[in-house]
Amino acid sequence: MPLANVTVIPLGTGSPSLSKYIAECVKEIEASGIKHTLTPFGSILEGELDEIFAVIKKIHEIPFKMGVKRVATLINIDDRRDKKASAEQKLRSVENRLKTLE
Amino acid sequence: MPLANVTVIPLGTGSPSLSKYIAECVKEIEASGIKHTLTPFGSILEGELDEIFAVIKKIHEIPFKMGVKRVATLINIDDRRDKKASAEQKLRSVENRLKTLE
Amino acid sequence: MPLANVTVIPLGTGSPSLSKYIAECVKEIEASGIKHTLTPFGSILEGELDEIFAVIKKIHEIPFKMGVKRVATLINIDDRRDKKASAEQKLRSVENRLKTLE
Amino acid sequence: MPLANVTVIPLGTGSPSLSKYIAECVKEIEASGIKHTLTPFGSILEGELDEIFAVIKKIHEIPFKMGVKRVATLINIDDRRDKKASAEQKLRSVENRLKTLE
Repeated sequence: MPLANVTVIPLGTGSPSLSKYIAECVKEIEASGIKHTLTPFGSILEGELDEIFAVIKKIHEIPFKMGVKRVATLINIDDRRDKKASAEQKLRSVENRLKTLE
Repeated sequence: MPLANVTVIPLGTGSPSLSKYIAECVKEIEASGIKHTLTPFGSILEGELDEIFAVIKKIHEIPFKMGVKRVATLINIDDRRDKKASAEQKLRSVENRLKTLE
Repeated sequence: MPLANVTVIPLGTGSPSLSKYIAECVKEIEASGIKHTLTPFGSILEGELDEIFAVIKKIHEIPFKMGVKRVATLINIDDRRDKKASAEQKLRSVENRLKTLE
Repeated sequence: MPLANVTVIPLGTGSPSLSKYIAECVKEIEASGIKHTLTPFGSILEGELDEIFAVIKKIHEIPFKMGVKRVATLINIDDRRDKKASAEQKLRSVENRLKTLE
């Protein structure tokens, strides 16, 4: 199942703080029921591509609904098909390797 | 109409050259009929989000069809709704500003 | 102090698993002493830009030292100067907003 | 020699138009003498990593000098060491492959 990191960036808002927009996006992600993790650089979504794109379409729209005129949305998809690879497994795999190096 | 820069990166292919995969992706983009421009860092697509995501889904799949086991796809959407903003206009707008600075 | 999310992607390695390269990068980050957090989409670095770029230069080099011929490195810098904004504070700020929405 | 695509995104400016900031960044890139190409999604820089990072540090600073309080800078480095790969060659390589597919 693919992982996607998505960052919605409202532009021209008049304030350097963007948390009110991001919080509404996260609320929408939570409502969607998709598996997700919030990070300081966006939200990691885990699901089929159709599901991921459906959620991204919705959250990309949120700042516009709140009056913003321009939005940049960054998406980084990591899709591995030779084995199961959840966000957690991906992280653990690096951490386990790291232990063998120490 | 939103612009999207999309970069499909096949991973673990065994060769540093990725052009055979990229060429197949570009062929698919051309077949889709969406307005697009090839750059050294991906393809710029211009269309509605549904159309853009439909094309991206197809090209993300191409390296898998060619035997690749993992694909990273990077998407950068720029969506401005206060005025028409094609990729060409966006570029020209900066170039015009630049002239006034010189 | 700026935050940067950095993802080093070795290309053409012959295997979809990249954890052995990533683990060496993380080891280098740890040795550098810079404040950092590992996520499933890279490492978040916190420090002055010079420090961040110095670490990135080192880890970008690691796959080459391990025999890789091509490396893509993605960097996303978030630099806010109106108030202190650590990775943790940025995350908490969204989480606090989220509570007020629920 | 590495290629880098760099996008400087001033945040919270109060207007969806960012071209005045981007034009100043491009002016700075031109003054630096580094080989570059302007695209609708940023500037492609070609040079050694030290040179690239030095230019990026300067242009990342420009919106701050113009009064902006928060800047996101996106960098995508593509570094291939098995053969010469300028931005132009990279593009031509895909275009040549594409011709053989048609």
